[in-house]
Amino acid sequence: MIGLPPAAWREIDDALEVALERLRVRSAALGEASAALGDATAASATGGKRLRPALVVAAFEAFGGDAGRSPGLWRVAAAFELLHAAFVVHDDLIDGDVERRGIPNVVGRFRERARVRGGDEDESRLLGSAAAVLAGDLLLFEATRLIATAPVTSPQRAALFVLLDDAVLVSAAGELADVEQSIGADLPPTDTLLRTARDKTAFYSFQAPLAAGALLAGANDDQRAALEAAGSAIGVAFQLADDLIGTFGTRAEAGREPGADLRASKRTPLIAMAAETEAWPQIASALAMAPTGPIAIEHAQRELTASGARERTVEMIAQTLRSARTLAADAALPRDAVVLLAALTAAVEDRIPR
Amino acid sequence: MIGLPPAAWREIDDALEVALERLRVRSAALGEASAALGDATAASATGGKRLRPALVVAAFEAFGGDAGRSPGLWRVAAAFELLHAAFVVHDDLIDGDVERRGIPNVVGRFRERARVRGGDEDESRLLGSAAAVLAGDLLLFEATRLIATAPVTSPQRAALFVLLDDAVLVSAAGELADVEQSIGADLPPTDTLLRTARDKTAFYSFQAPLAAGALLAGANDDQRAALEAAGSAIGVAFQLADDLIGTFGTRAEAGREPGADLRASKRTPLIAMAAETEAWPQIASALAMAPTGPIAIEHAQRELTASGARERTVEMIAQTLRSARTLAADAALPRDAVVLLAALTAAVEDRIPR
Repeated sequence: MIGLPPAAWREIDDALEVALERLRVRSAALGEASAALGDATAASATGGKRLRPALVVAAFEAFGGDAGRSPGLWRVAAAFELLHAAFVVHDDLIDGDVERRGIPNVVGRFRERARVRGGDEDESRLLGSAAAVLAGDLLLFEATRLIATAPVTSPQRAALFVLLDDAVLVSAAGELADVEQSIGADLPPTDTLLRTARDKTAFYSFQAPLAAGALLAGANDDQRAALEAAGSAIGVAFQLADDLIGTFGTRAEAGREPGADLRASKRTPLIAMAAETEAWPQIASALAMAPTGPIAIEHAQRELTASGARERTVEMIAQTLRSARTLAADAALPRDAVVLLAALTAAVEDRIPR
Repeated sequence: MIGLPPAAWREIDDALEVALERLRVRSAALGEASAALGDATAASATGGKRLRPALVVAAFEAFGGDAGRSPGLWRVAAAFELLHAAFVVHDDLIDGDVERRGIPNVVGRFRERARVRGGDEDESRLLGSAAAVLAGDLLLFEATRLIATAPVTSPQRAALFVLLDDAVLVSAAGELADVEQSIGADLPPTDTLLRTARDKTAFYSFQAPLAAGALLAGANDDQRAALEAAGSAIGVAFQLADDLIGTFGTRAEAGREPGADLRASKRTPLIAMAAETEAWPQIASALAMAPTGPIAIEHAQRELTASGARERTVEMIAQTLRSARTLAADAALPRDAVVLLAALTAAVEDRIPR
């Protein structure tokens, strides 16, 4: 979703690999079980799109930062990938998922490990959960440690910790809200679900990495505030596009079974907007049937489209991205920062399934 | 278990309360659910014995540190209490415990919260687990942040992060080993279980806090190494005494139902030593019955005592504490450090149920 020179990708990958290899080696020194945990933890932070590190680096360059004179840049960028991995591992644990991208995640690996060792179903669940709790802890700590020990100035470190502190707390609030909103009979209103998307995803995935890159490059407070506001809006639009992909996307677009959000009865702003239409009674029936199979999913997709909720979500994405562009234009950002934000808004638009 | 002047306890409590109040206030700003998470998280780090902060401060003073000239001391001390709270919250989650010290823990609080909101049993478990994952994450991050931003010198911060890095990894290895060793039919050997006690408890509870205090006071590497070795031994002895309390202690000694370790079929070095005796077949039968009630627990207690395993555990504690004293005597530690270690070994001996 974001273009960087090959050399920048290599620096990001190197910083990440140094951290993960260190974790593997240190874990292996503590015994065979710990070695397996180190491997599973490192694997969970490997092979992703590295969106968040790329945002750190792109913002840094857009504000005129000179990577040759900021050796801490790559560690800070890598830290955001580890933070993401920590949240993904703990989110998978909470959601009861045993796979990610079609291969066993930490829970799946350690459930299998327990089975191989003669554990029964309960023991297998126990070990899977324990390993996922610990893997997420190791990743969260490592992300924090990378920033605490990065070669940056003291004021930069202090500012990065303010950002990281917010990222951890806001993401936790968003994750908790996401779980709470899945409970009980009442569908929360659209605004509440948008707020959850912002807290759970937009802050740590867009706003904070962009701000981190800008502050390392020496952006002033006004510029950073504008960048953060635009980043937050882009992050929310990104999540709304993700909801459309999870609901209407093809297998190629979604990278998994089509209609996975419908199968999982996920409460998204898209669904909340459908609930505000007169067609809701028949949509609700269709959604209730969706987990039963592909035909029911296609029926629910048609009902949602017919209600106008799909179109309204596309409009909401367009509007959110317009607000991001306006924020960028009004704030006297450097030209390269405006170009970066324009590229990000275009990339989010491109993700919308047609 | 450790004596400090009232002013030092107040400084520890103040540093801890500043961190927890900040967490509560910041959480409350993010909505009602987040406020509840902040309150539950802060509560889980409140009201403990503050053993680990006390060890930081006691070691600092034993090595001649001047608290008036080390304003970072109290934050570092408080960080170890938060680290402990993080591990306890995640350990309770892994163990499926819903109470601590007789009151609902984070899991218990949020299970009840889900019920009040009309959640069914599955939803209640889901919310309890989610909140506990997040509360532990917040505490782990806050412990790390306190040290990353404490007013200490750069070399001190770097050394503290080496310690903290080890504490997080070694404790994770110990927690994982503890879970793995509870799985399957085979009882692990005594040495393996002792290693797990060292990794899961002794490192972060004794070795690391003592080392942190000593390094802030300017202890040299040899002194720190000796202190760490002695601290590790004392920590293992502490855990062995804890096993005796959980197996044979009265309600007053244990602060909970007597024989809780037998009720939970916990695999401790004590049990592994019983398995090395000829009486093991009847002990194993008695242990298998122990979860059924008080009479079966008393029977298992008698069998364990008769096998000599209880006495052997007491001897092992004495021997481990002797090694701690020898390490202290051989290392040319300052007199006050020797006195501190002697006080700690005496305190562990006093915990052994008679």
